Amino acid sequence: MQKKDKEVQKRDSQVYDFGSISWKGAELGNLKEHLVENIHLVEEYPEREAESIVRLLSRRLEVKEDQVIVTDGATGALHLVASISKGATSLILPPTNQEFRHALERAEHIIKEAHDVKDLGKLDLAGIDYLWICNPNNPDGRFFSRRAILSLLREHPEVNVVIDLSMASYVVEDNIKASDIKKYPNLIVVSSFSRAYNIPGMRVGYAVSTADKMKHFKQNYTPRCVGSLALEATRFILLHPAQFTIPIRKWLRDSMQLAEKLDSIYGIEVIYGSTPYFMIRLNVGTVSELSTFLWEEYDIKIATREDDLDLQENEVRLCGYIGDRNNEPLIEGIQEYITRFTETEGEEVER
Amino acid sequence: MQKKDKEVQKRDSQVYDFGSISWKGAELGNLKEHLVENIHLVEEYPEREAESIVRLLSRRLEVKEDQVIVTDGATGALHLVASISKGATSLILPPTNQEFRHALERAEHIIKEAHDVKDLGKLDLAGIDYLWICNPNNPDGRFFSRRAILSLLREHPEVNVVIDLSMASYVVEDNIKASDIKKYPNLIVVSSFSRAYNIPGMRVGYAVSTADKMKHFKQNYTPRCVGSLALEATRFILLHPAQFTIPIRKWLRDSMQLAEKLDSIYGIEVIYGSTPYFMIRLNVGTVSELSTFLWEEYDIKIATREDDLDLQENEVRLCGYIGDRNNEPLIEGIQEYITRFTETEGEEVER
Repeated sequence: MQKKDKEVQKRDSQVYDFGSISWKGAELGNLKEHLVENIHLVEEYPEREAESIVRLLSRRLEVKEDQVIVTDGATGALHLVASISKGATSLILPPTNQEFRHALERAEHIIKEAHDVKDLGKLDLAGIDYLWICNPNNPDGRFFSRRAILSLLREHPEVNVVIDLSMASYVVEDNIKASDIKKYPNLIVVSSFSRAYNIPGMRVGYAVSTADKMKHFKQNYTPRCVGSLALEATRFILLHPAQFTIPIRKWLRDSMQLAEKLDSIYGIEVIYGSTPYFMIRLNVGTVSELSTFLWEEYDIKIATREDDLDLQENEVRLCGYIGDRNNEPLIEGIQEYITRFTETEGEEVER
Repeated sequence: MQKKDKEVQKRDSQVYDFGSISWKGAELGNLKEHLVENIHLVEEYPEREAESIVRLLSRRLEVKEDQVIVTDGATGALHLVASISKGATSLILPPTNQEFRHALERAEHIIKEAHDVKDLGKLDLAGIDYLWICNPNNPDGRFFSRRAILSLLREHPEVNVVIDLSMASYVVEDNIKASDIKKYPNLIVVSSFSRAYNIPGMRVGYAVSTADKMKHFKQNYTPRCVGSLALEATRFILLHPAQFTIPIRKWLRDSMQLAEKLDSIYGIEVIYGSTPYFMIRLNVGTVSELSTFLWEEYDIKIATREDDLDLQENEVRLCGYIGDRNNEPLIEGIQEYITRFTETEGEEVER
């Protein structure tokens, strides 16, 4: 509540949000202008199954129209995929997208976990119906290569592999693609127009699978679950893709520089991934204290397990900005917290 | 396709939409302005379960916060209610809200039907788990009095009665209320901020039930299924309710005048209800011919079974405007169609 009050107060001043992994550099001026011009769409029913967006999207993804479904966010897509296979046995690879767990619990899957997996080839998939991979992964930026996933798909045709590609544009490496479902019918791809476009408020996602599976998804689909303005925003993005390209190499470089500087601070351990966001472990002090300190003293937000992320108590997810200058306050703030903490510790020992 | 092309062409000219039952007189200027001012919300995640709207709504409806859930349209609410009781036996009262059937089929309910019910007291509810009533009803404007529904709830505590109140503001009579769940735990109320506010594009609905049932709804709920702008629109409506009052007596009066004039046309039979919308039966010609004729010659839209309504082949749903002058083109158009049709018929007989 206190944090909330301060938030209102701070709304107009500069807040550094290192917690969010939305692409904050997105140039949304044209999109917003387009939505404002089309605000009358609030008066019009959206299409029952977002048919026109399915059409555009299928062309973009190079799949057929009956292989795509447009949902209320990637979240909606994940819950839909889980819902057609109630009671199945699912394997997740923590730490990972927390929504996997929510969707699977809701659909009463038997959830198995394989922790800190580095090599997909070594996974034990006996008895597994569904394998859920976020690629690149959230919260740690772990990335499995296209080649590794293709091998998995080939070697385990009996396992349905669900890949969440929502953050695919956050890596430079070759990733799996929606059109890979043509060769690998055991692949289901989920993605969204959300963080990578900095419009998580619109709630537009999608799933791609073989037409056979798609029939089941459609049976469980809530008609018109995506509103007219959200569909219009998606149309705009699909027709003007160039406006939404992320300068990923630069973002990665600057963010990795931030990570390395943090890694040199006593008490901080960085877990590097393939994305501009990464995890740190705090080996002195507590995350909740650090979080409060950064917010109150530096107007800085960070992401912790309190934000419904699959993090341990001493872990934080951070995402850098482009431009070193923008990342300096975070380094300074964390350094200051550690210094104060170790000084207090020292005093206590002296007494 | 042809109709679609013409639609694009006609966009700027006057189209008379007697098919839609949205309250087209809604003064949306302030709401749209508010949304335009808050267009930055596309960048922000919506609340996971629309918590702030649940709070406002629970006060407005005089129920507790844990008795309300905010959904992607009334459609989302209906599918949610159906989904927590897969395989149950449900009774619907056709003609009625077509979405009942869709939701029940999807959730594999056993669907029973009682046609043209006038008196709820005479319903045979043996073996029925759920009874679904749209009140007032769509497409025919049928209305069951508050007293009749309360008797039903009292006499059949074993039956869950789902009442869709989406068009409650289209009648002047006393209707059931969300707060009636306090006395009748077998009542589930569904409603929306859609046609009655002329914002069906926003997709915001809700369900109200006992906290016990609500727990099951929440288990099946897709988090963040309502986007940030849609939530903001709802907030605006809840904080400025007076701007959205329908002048229902005037609308009813003018619409009934339209109905009576149509009823006097040879070959047309009006089925009167309690709402500004009503059904007609066409006893000469065909509905699809009439529909094409009105669109091409008069720029008039009407609603037929092609619009996913629970109508017979010779039935049409119509909704009048306020102001006699606005309704005249429809009377003229239908009169003209009937005249032409009977003349052609006559010629054919002569040959």
